[in-house]
Amino acid sequence: MDVESVFHMAGGVGDTSYSKNSSLQKKASDMVKHITMEAVQEVFLSLNKPNSFGMADLGCSSGPNTLSIIKDIIKSVEEAEACGVNVKFLNQCPTITTKEFRVYLNDLPTNDFNSIFKALPDFHGELKKSTRRSDLYIAASPGSFYGRLFPSGSLHFVYSSYSLHWLSKVPRALYDEQGKSTNKGCIYISESSPPTVAQAYQAQFREDFSSFLQFRSQELIPGGQMVLILLGRRGPNHIDRGNSFFWEILSRSFSTLILEVGDD
Amino acid sequence: MDVESVFHMAGGVGDTSYSKNSSLQKKASDMVKHITMEAVQEVFLSLNKPNSFGMADLGCSSGPNTLSIIKDIIKSVEEAEACGVNVKFLNQCPTITTKEFRVYLNDLPTNDFNSIFKALPDFHGELKKSTRRSDLYIAASPGSFYGRLFPSGSLHFVYSSYSLHWLSKVPRALYDEQGKSTNKGCIYISESSPPTVAQAYQAQFREDFSSFLQFRSQELIPGGQMVLILLGRRGPNHIDRGNSFFWEILSRSFSTLILEVGDD
Repeated sequence: MDVESVFHMAGGVGDTSYSKNSSLQKKASDMVKHITMEAVQEVFLSLNKPNSFGMADLGCSSGPNTLSIIKDIIKSVEEAEACGVNVKFLNQCPTITTKEFRVYLNDLPTNDFNSIFKALPDFHGELKKSTRRSDLYIAASPGSFYGRLFPSGSLHFVYSSYSLHWLSKVPRALYDEQGKSTNKGCIYISESSPPTVAQAYQAQFREDFSSFLQFRSQELIPGGQMVLILLGRRGPNHIDRGNSFFWEILSRSFSTLILEVGDD
Repeated sequence: MDVESVFHMAGGVGDTSYSKNSSLQKKASDMVKHITMEAVQEVFLSLNKPNSFGMADLGCSSGPNTLSIIKDIIKSVEEAEACGVNVKFLNQCPTITTKEFRVYLNDLPTNDFNSIFKALPDFHGELKKSTRRSDLYIAASPGSFYGRLFPSGSLHFVYSSYSLHWLSKVPRALYDEQGKSTNKGCIYISESSPPTVAQAYQAQFREDFSSFLQFRSQELIPGGQMVLILLGRRGPNHIDRGNSFFWEILSRSFSTLILEVGDD
């Protein structure tokens, strides 16, 4: 399966869309929002308030979360622009010199970028009311973040939330020499999976994450920062990931579905 | 009517999509392709083969024309990179230093960018076979080209084909003091339109085109160039635009439709 060409969150704004079903992802992002904002302000100030600030949201998907985090980051930079870190009363700060703010929204090419774009005129209108910023450039850069996405040294800040646990491909090591799956009847790492399955996913993650870091190191300017939010686990047991019951339920649903189709 | 929020070519790839009905636009663009390619090569060479070349297609729409012109421009720059203008045998040229090539696709936010993005993985694959270029960055920058779109001095070349005859708004001067249309029963400038109608459209075009030039002058670097392809007319008569019969047919169709709806 060519993941880059087919994988995406459910588009549009209907009842089953990602846009209407991403409160969990919003919650995760909100939990560490203070870290994100501190990092943005730190990079902005430590790089001496660059004239053209570039940031990317990798795996932005489509929905309210996409533009909501951009708005928060813009406000955060505006605070730092005005008086430094932790400014609470922006209106009391002296007028700032206008600086360019470049935002690149990234996801796989089948992501529903159209829905984000349709929301942009209102978003720009709203921003004009709530911030002083008028020189905001939002662009979409479709492609896999396991490959090169942006020109050299064009970014100051990289943000990625709830995306990096998606691998670039189904690990080759999941299949035996005859090309048969060693993880029969299971999706991802389940209780009944043999140990080689966890190892296969781990190796794929290591390979993917190394690529991710390698390419970002070319795109970020020296002194730039990243905030990466991804699923993890508390203990050494691969099955204990907090959300593994999702995979069990999904796995059973698929099995039932396949049996039903087989009966017809 | 807020043109920026609603106006777009028909999306998708169905029988009535712009993608399947844009051979006329392709023909127009092909007629002046030699001018486009010469301009691209000239700007590339006169600016001493910039390390990061930025270009934008304003009003790119979606369909085969969008990526086809990008491919032609990339090849053209590659020729200039290798040995200078008018190189016919690229394979005999010495290996070139790899340079960054940034492409920004622009159209209004309701344009079907998703369809373009879906074609990108194949497009990149094809380019790898037919050119030496590997450092191509394609991004979409949605918004009206009658406003600011790109950071200062970020572009070397601007291309716009069959787009600039679309105005930013319905000219205010088309309405009399009571807010009633002075162009009753007509769409655009027709034979039965009073002279004030042509004047209203002309004034709106002047205003829009001035904005266009003003913003592009901020986005293009000094020495950059533009190729703008738009509908014109041969004589002083506003009605004689070559394609005015389209508007007459469309106008009559709408009238018939409205009468039919009125009868129901």
